[in-house]
Amino acid sequence: MSDSPRTVTHSDMANAIRFLSLDAVEAAKSGHPGMPMGMADVATVLFSRYLKFDAAHPTWADRDRFILSGGHGSMLLYSLMYLTGNSKITLDEIKHFRQLGHHTAGHPEVDHEAGIETTTGPLGQGLGNAVGFALAERILNARFGDELVNHHTWVTCGDGDLEEGISHEACSLAGHLKLGRLIVLYDDNHITIDGPTSLSFSDDVQKRFEGYHWHVQRVDGHDTDAIAAAIDAALADDRPSLIACRTIIGWGAPNKQGTSGVHGSALGKDEVAATRANLNWPYPPFEVPETTIAAWREIGKRGDAERQAWDARLAKTPAETRAAFRHAMDGTLPSGLDGILAKFKAETSAAKPSLATRTASGQVLELLVPAIPELIGGSADLTPSNNTKTKVSTDIEPGKYGGRYIRYGVREHGMAAAMNGLTLHGGVIPYGATFLTFTDYCRPSIRLAALMRQRVVYVMTHDSIGLGEDGPTHQPVEHVSALRAIPHLMVFRPCDAVETAEAWQIALETQDAPSVLALTRQNLPTLRLDANAENLSAKGGYILREATGTPRVLLVATGSEVSIANEARDLLEAEGIGTRLVSMPCTALFDRQPSDYRRRVLGQGVVRIAVEAGVRHGWDHYIGPDGAFVGMTGFGASGPYEQLYKHFGITAEAVVAAAKAKL
Amino acid sequence: MSDSPRTVTHSDMANAIRFLSLDAVEAAKSGHPGMPMGMADVATVLFSRYLKFDAAHPTWADRDRFILSGGHGSMLLYSLMYLTGNSKITLDEIKHFRQLGHHTAGHPEVDHEAGIETTTGPLGQGLGNAVGFALAERILNARFGDELVNHHTWVTCGDGDLEEGISHEACSLAGHLKLGRLIVLYDDNHITIDGPTSLSFSDDVQKRFEGYHWHVQRVDGHDTDAIAAAIDAALADDRPSLIACRTIIGWGAPNKQGTSGVHGSALGKDEVAATRANLNWPYPPFEVPETTIAAWREIGKRGDAERQAWDARLAKTPAETRAAFRHAMDGTLPSGLDGILAKFKAETSAAKPSLATRTASGQVLELLVPAIPELIGGSADLTPSNNTKTKVSTDIEPGKYGGRYIRYGVREHGMAAAMNGLTLHGGVIPYGATFLTFTDYCRPSIRLAALMRQRVVYVMTHDSIGLGEDGPTHQPVEHVSALRAIPHLMVFRPCDAVETAEAWQIALETQDAPSVLALTRQNLPTLRLDANAENLSAKGGYILREATGTPRVLLVATGSEVSIANEARDLLEAEGIGTRLVSMPCTALFDRQPSDYRRRVLGQGVVRIAVEAGVRHGWDHYIGPDGAFVGMTGFGASGPYEQLYKHFGITAEAVVAAAKAKL
Repeated sequence: MSDSPRTVTHSDMANAIRFLSLDAVEAAKSGHPGMPMGMADVATVLFSRYLKFDAAHPTWADRDRFILSGGHGSMLLYSLMYLTGNSKITLDEIKHFRQLGHHTAGHPEVDHEAGIETTTGPLGQGLGNAVGFALAERILNARFGDELVNHHTWVTCGDGDLEEGISHEACSLAGHLKLGRLIVLYDDNHITIDGPTSLSFSDDVQKRFEGYHWHVQRVDGHDTDAIAAAIDAALADDRPSLIACRTIIGWGAPNKQGTSGVHGSALGKDEVAATRANLNWPYPPFEVPETTIAAWREIGKRGDAERQAWDARLAKTPAETRAAFRHAMDGTLPSGLDGILAKFKAETSAAKPSLATRTASGQVLELLVPAIPELIGGSADLTPSNNTKTKVSTDIEPGKYGGRYIRYGVREHGMAAAMNGLTLHGGVIPYGATFLTFTDYCRPSIRLAALMRQRVVYVMTHDSIGLGEDGPTHQPVEHVSALRAIPHLMVFRPCDAVETAEAWQIALETQDAPSVLALTRQNLPTLRLDANAENLSAKGGYILREATGTPRVLLVATGSEVSIANEARDLLEAEGIGTRLVSMPCTALFDRQPSDYRRRVLGQGVVRIAVEAGVRHGWDHYIGPDGAFVGMTGFGASGPYEQLYKHFGITAEAVVAAAKAKL
Repeated sequence: MSDSPRTVTHSDMANAIRFLSLDAVEAAKSGHPGMPMGMADVATVLFSRYLKFDAAHPTWADRDRFILSGGHGSMLLYSLMYLTGNSKITLDEIKHFRQLGHHTAGHPEVDHEAGIETTTGPLGQGLGNAVGFALAERILNARFGDELVNHHTWVTCGDGDLEEGISHEACSLAGHLKLGRLIVLYDDNHITIDGPTSLSFSDDVQKRFEGYHWHVQRVDGHDTDAIAAAIDAALADDRPSLIACRTIIGWGAPNKQGTSGVHGSALGKDEVAATRANLNWPYPPFEVPETTIAAWREIGKRGDAERQAWDARLAKTPAETRAAFRHAMDGTLPSGLDGILAKFKAETSAAKPSLATRTASGQVLELLVPAIPELIGGSADLTPSNNTKTKVSTDIEPGKYGGRYIRYGVREHGMAAAMNGLTLHGGVIPYGATFLTFTDYCRPSIRLAALMRQRVVYVMTHDSIGLGEDGPTHQPVEHVSALRAIPHLMVFRPCDAVETAEAWQIALETQDAPSVLALTRQNLPTLRLDANAENLSAKGGYILREATGTPRVLLVATGSEVSIANEARDLLEAEGIGTRLVSMPCTALFDRQPSDYRRRVLGQGVVRIAVEAGVRHGWDHYIGPDGAFVGMTGFGASGPYEQLYKHFGITAEAVVAAAKAKL
């Protein structure tokens, strides 16, 4: 097919997106053509005139971030990457849309080299991430200045994103923090899967976002001048911006556009042909005229000069600052941490404090936060309970981003999604806190952190019935088990201050996985009496107290129940029953040990008893169906925690009785 | 202490709440005095002049519902119940606030006889429930008329509730549905746990709620006339109403009021004394003057005449309508369902369709919805995928509540919370749908349904990698396991259309537990070839195919993997290896069977293999640590599902290989 000699127009460029998208969906026989076709005009204006990027250097630190929150419209992103010349998203990848082993998955999967800033699909998450991206930019700007950090965060989102609760948490927080470099292009297409949005959605989005103190505009999403004018105004305003782009979903498909039929299904042969005729696009599937490709490739190079200038500025930056910037962006930890933590552990072993692990975590943070400038903490309005704010943790405030602590408000889900954005941006190692029971509120974002293999640290206190009087709504019983079910996630339940320090160390040193630290409200004795630099928790589980003589009983416990199991061990040993105590702060890490280590720790021919103030679900992997479990069989209750432990039978005496019943 | 002879004033009545609350918190040495003290004036106005209730008949069907969304302020509710004369919340219960075995738990635990309409504490949930309560009222009003159903839903909530994402989903839905009988009294006290709300929260709440098309007012929460005027205006308006009551948290505590210090801790002896002096309340702890008690008890009787009039109207209602109303409110199922489902099962067994279980569920609903008028369905904007709308399922629309189907929009969490309210109100049996992966979005509300032991049915389709190209964000791998960890929750993963019908039957017949139906996108063969009225799924797991001769291998599988295991069984049997196949649609029900039944089903001395397209977590309870597991070890991928099953090694051949490796 020969190229037309005429000048490449906006329509040609936008139609390239449309046809790549619909052809890819057609070939895959599945996917979502409506959004890319509807948003092609907006995306073309953004990429061709505004987005700061250099397709040849997709990981340039000071690039604008573009986040496709409605991840089902993934072909919009893939089309843009291919057209602008990203080296990973080739035409072959486009042709293998939604096929195993390709970069063009059904929903975008994070790959910065492919121009995919974050994994999206579960609605609202991209928008929540974007708040973290935009905040990271300001945090790094406060640290390194305009010369090195000076970019925008752009988001496309749909009605679904804005209906999700997380959009409220994220956008309310962004408005509060005055994240003026966050610009959201809302694909206001009036269509959802069930039909017209009017079936279920009648928000006055403008008023709602004005309520968040955002700058809000409405434009025709197919009027390029209007889109550009709105973006200009958004850039000029110092508030976060929402531009509601009134679009027609599936624009160009003559019979299906503007209907839910074009949202999530291939158009079908006839409608594809009709669309080609309608838009005067005579090219075969996946073919884009050379001139149009060339025009798009020019756009891919638009940022080259700016990137080179940035490189030059970085080269001229004082060596120390330059090293600090690279160090931050690489996410490596400062040397010397091992020594700091070894000292803490040794001192704690010697002093043997009775300490809640949340308090121990606070003490560890007092050491870590000053030592790691990238470590940015926060809490969803439980700071005094979570012990997450250190002496040097000044607040990050609206317009003042030089602090080290984020007041997330009562926004657990927004916090977790923002933390994903903070870490994905680079330059920040985020930790955030709430009660363990509210991991349920964060769970969709925790899952994505695990799927994306991002280093995010969740400080989750009040981790069992040990929180006492707040009762069953606040007492996690199934949460530790349910979190352990998430692949890649490391769930730590340390038994004392030493293990708490070890959990922190592992969480920070593991760049490719998130960690949950499940910490107690109640005080616990120090059980690790000979701690040194070696991180025993890194094995996931280890022998804390060996049996005297041949072990007949194996007790394996976590967190606050290790001290109960330790008492039980003393009672059993006093009766001449050799009893080994294993502390198991992280089952995921234990599962990764060689089988001979695991067998050695768990023993052979012993009565096995697990002790954890949660449900049994998952424990049979270690103790077998014939092992005994001392823990919870249902929800908790409201009362002083010492009484609850007795009421629910989680006591040293119960452990002894369970052992004897099996001997 | 003798009573003052003067007339009882509003202040006396409100102060009774304040001192009961602070005395109870003081005695418990834990709790939240600030909210009850701050909201005492608002609550006194509401209860003394507006709330339709009769303390002697707390379960009166047409009572107004009062929901304390900020459950930490539980002493407000308990004080009101005691003062108005609720028979369960006695002074002794108040004195045992937050103690084991009492009705006065740290956070309110649902007990309609105690005036506790729902369990609250996790912020935003009460508000979400309230939307369900208010909608149930309208649904029943449409069915039974003003004579029998004509009441309001009142909510108190705080900043925290309004910061939570669920508040957006719930209030946006309420605004869309024009639930004008929902009135929210917002405790606008400018204080959160971390400090002043200004640390993290700067929403213009009025604008936000106007964006939801609510009626919004602001009043001084300590000005009784202003509160009453605002409530009058709210009652007169046909939109849902938010009344932002500017209050002072801990009102009356001279040194601590208006600070976060009064939010969640006992005031302490000195401040209690200072508060007594400040408010001229010379009575000892827990003592309220007789005249004040008497005035409150009169309020408790205020609704008596209205309730009697309602009883008279019910008595005069035609017998058939009266029976239908009682039947609805009791939540009993119509007779004849067993026969309908037995017929469906027998016909399906005979026809042996290849059918996705989501399609089978749709077919079952075509039978159930016409037969059960209380069954009200819905989906979070996935109706065509979830197969939840039947031929008779007309939409419930704004202002028109006679339908049978709720368009929840992209509001999974709001849906789940509203379903809790729908069932707690009585008269409605709610089912609602989304993709199984988005149970993560619903999880806080699912947990509360389980904790409250409510019959809610979650229709969760696209339950594994079997959904194919949408990829790992949409493919549940850990969700079935994580849901099984929740106490009381029944998780069903039926293997074919017959088991799908059985799961529906159990879910509906179990009044005291919620159920998740995990259903496939992809077609499955019919495996139950001799189905009759007996519900085999009710045992949780059962022998679907016995071994020929002595079983040497036991295969236990769920859902879509039962057919894979069945193929594997055929292959093993063909080689002369006796293989038993157990279908395990609901592990929770299996766990409740007598141990001899469980032992018989799982066999002795056999090689055990579990097959499920999810994580192993939890399966060792049935197969032991030495059993083999054929399933997922991490997240899924984007691709056609047949390829994914091969890629991840979930095939009959893999099962055979695993069996042989153990034999």
